[in-house]
Amino acid sequence: MALVTPRTLSGFKDRLPKEALAKAHLLNKVSNVFMNFGFVPIETPHLEYADVLIKQGSDEIQKELYRFKDHGGRDVALRFDLTVPLARFVSQYKNEVGLPFKRYAIGNVFRGERAQRGRYREFTQCDFDFIGSDSISCDAEILQVIYASLMKLGIEEFTIWLNHRSILNGICEYCGITQEKDINVALRIIDKLDKIGKERVSEELQKELGLNNNQVENLLEYTSIKQQGESESFFRQISFMEEWNDSIKKGIEDLKMLYEVLSSLQMDRDTYRVNFSIARGLGYYTGIVYETTLNALKSIGSVCSGGRYDNLTRTFSKEKMSGVGASIGIDRLLAALEELELLQKRATSARALIVCMDRLYFGYAHLLAESFRCSEIPIEVYPEASKLKKQFTYAHLKGYEFVVVIGENEFNTKTLTLKNMTSGVQIDSISFLKALALIQEE
Amino acid sequence: MALVTPRTLSGFKDRLPKEALAKAHLLNKVSNVFMNFGFVPIETPHLEYADVLIKQGSDEIQKELYRFKDHGGRDVALRFDLTVPLARFVSQYKNEVGLPFKRYAIGNVFRGERAQRGRYREFTQCDFDFIGSDSISCDAEILQVIYASLMKLGIEEFTIWLNHRSILNGICEYCGITQEKDINVALRIIDKLDKIGKERVSEELQKELGLNNNQVENLLEYTSIKQQGESESFFRQISFMEEWNDSIKKGIEDLKMLYEVLSSLQMDRDTYRVNFSIARGLGYYTGIVYETTLNALKSIGSVCSGGRYDNLTRTFSKEKMSGVGASIGIDRLLAALEELELLQKRATSARALIVCMDRLYFGYAHLLAESFRCSEIPIEVYPEASKLKKQFTYAHLKGYEFVVVIGENEFNTKTLTLKNMTSGVQIDSISFLKALALIQEE
Repeated sequence: MALVTPRTLSGFKDRLPKEALAKAHLLNKVSNVFMNFGFVPIETPHLEYADVLIKQGSDEIQKELYRFKDHGGRDVALRFDLTVPLARFVSQYKNEVGLPFKRYAIGNVFRGERAQRGRYREFTQCDFDFIGSDSISCDAEILQVIYASLMKLGIEEFTIWLNHRSILNGICEYCGITQEKDINVALRIIDKLDKIGKERVSEELQKELGLNNNQVENLLEYTSIKQQGESESFFRQISFMEEWNDSIKKGIEDLKMLYEVLSSLQMDRDTYRVNFSIARGLGYYTGIVYETTLNALKSIGSVCSGGRYDNLTRTFSKEKMSGVGASIGIDRLLAALEELELLQKRATSARALIVCMDRLYFGYAHLLAESFRCSEIPIEVYPEASKLKKQFTYAHLKGYEFVVVIGENEFNTKTLTLKNMTSGVQIDSISFLKALALIQEE
Repeated sequence: MALVTPRTLSGFKDRLPKEALAKAHLLNKVSNVFMNFGFVPIETPHLEYADVLIKQGSDEIQKELYRFKDHGGRDVALRFDLTVPLARFVSQYKNEVGLPFKRYAIGNVFRGERAQRGRYREFTQCDFDFIGSDSISCDAEILQVIYASLMKLGIEEFTIWLNHRSILNGICEYCGITQEKDINVALRIIDKLDKIGKERVSEELQKELGLNNNQVENLLEYTSIKQQGESESFFRQISFMEEWNDSIKKGIEDLKMLYEVLSSLQMDRDTYRVNFSIARGLGYYTGIVYETTLNALKSIGSVCSGGRYDNLTRTFSKEKMSGVGASIGIDRLLAALEELELLQKRATSARALIVCMDRLYFGYAHLLAESFRCSEIPIEVYPEASKLKKQFTYAHLKGYEFVVVIGENEFNTKTLTLKNMTSGVQIDSISFLKALALIQEE
């Protein structure tokens, strides 16, 4: 039989243990946070009827869709995000699950985009949404989840930037941009400020929307407003804008209500700030929107973004279904955690490896391993009684903290020899309890 | 815009919160067990080059493959199991990850089979494998993982049935079936014993392999041998078979070595027993094989099966790569846990719901929620200040253990009213600490 060359599909990615472990730990932590707030998991298939997906996707996304005919000739496609399946799910099961409904979903999505560095055609999304209520209480909770998630991951220096679509709409209106289509174009251009700079943004605004210098200047000035100090003084400073139009007024009122709830909490007030430049690319946000940057790593961009939308299920139902949700950028966050040295990157989930100098000692080795595991020490037994050199090379490659050696003396005296792989210190023929204490100390 | 009917793709399944939560808890528990034993997660894409998948799949599986052309015209397919991707992965990265290599993988696989009750075209597999060593130490560890996983799930009454392909081969040989092809046919037929009964198995053996009555009788007699009591006396009882041929001898020796390791452990010896009828359908097992049945629910079949194979990477490399692995039947196990009433089926991950009689109290409600969460009580705030009746209906639907009510009095006195939803007992205007104690008591 001719051999097949083992290779990963072009544009796709395998995750080796170090990375997969780090990701599993991260997802485990944020899932626990979601559940603490009463967000529950749901599962929808990776494959959907194509028409379920395409109505809600942009032109670009439609081009990138993995779409084909299944065995029954059905027109099917791999999901490109978790939001459209959520919209379908809520439309189908809203009575069974009951509204308001809080769900989280962690799953892979597929986009056949042109391959580029660091972008893959399959990637993991991690979304949480609070659906079926307009209450500011939901927005407050989503922000608390972002806060709790980052804290849980050991990140303490971050900023959740808040804005409101009505404020952006209102500023545009004040600057003479009144058509929704034009507003969307303006916001899309302003969103590129960090990437392409003020000058090119000005040029594009003039070119694409025919704005004059004065309009552009106003637009850039007002959308560059950021809360610096306490919220009370900030809201006083911008109170003059409330007079401009109802849209801005509504936006500022919502933000004030949000702050009222948030300020009751023990949550650090320095971690959330209003920033009128946050535009969020997606057109479907209609209320408060947010992005989250890490203070020490602003350059990597937002690690958690989201906002309020007023019509999640628009392609499935005439009934409006509002909600608020956010998405954690798993890959970006993993990169950030590594950069901040908050990620333990080891190739093993076990803290220690037991090595035997003879296969006769396997029974004893497994008994020791069983005892360590009972005391919450993840541990494994090297399955061959080969030369110690080989076993220690293996231990270094995988990154165990400790190696336990069982030789003739240890076996006969029912002891073990413990080597600390970091310090290099080895203690011969000690009891299980002594070894346990030493490992637990670390 | 015309509306799309929201519907799940035919043959696929959505999982609502109750089920998805139960599954998430189960997978979380078994993942922790895997990691305690040093099994690490890896990730491979859901999509692979079709030729990577098809060489190792049976004819039936090839027919069921979701196969199509991607945007670059590549011949691609959705994975139908996690074993072939593992074989590819190990072939590609064996030097990076180092051998022996222990991985677990939990992921969805796709088979476009004819739809039938309880079978879906996308389902979750949960595999763990110990690759790159022939040592019996690996087999012993896989069995310990099965044991620890079931114990962790609260199942204490189960049996891991052990057999060895060499014993089955040796029995066949003794009965005059010597060709590998014929042996595989015989084992496939014997494997159906529970399903179709002894008579029809006898018929099929005679018809398909031309065996005479005597051969069939011997075959059925020897493959029906089961360990009843202690292993020592069992191995003495079957010692006469060791003389028949080298194949049986080798199989029994391996089982004895396995028992030697296992008997050193604290693991309950009644949970594993030799059973010569275990054949395992898959042709690629070459050593010890096992199935696991729940004593109280034998009828649902094996919840965890596996075995040793000597050539995982046969389609990718001439180098032999042996290993031993098992697969937990997630859906079957979930059904069993429900049947055994070991599954908490609630639609919420939160233990309590806070309801406010006025939106003015949201800040206080969120502060209380924050405090409960700090004390490890998952809790959520109902986002609307609607009538209490509506909120309690919601609480019943979701299945909270407690409802916390914040009215004017509670808000003014910084207390709360706690209702136990199981007992119906309500205690008015108590302090946070008192409420916390009551919830923690349950």
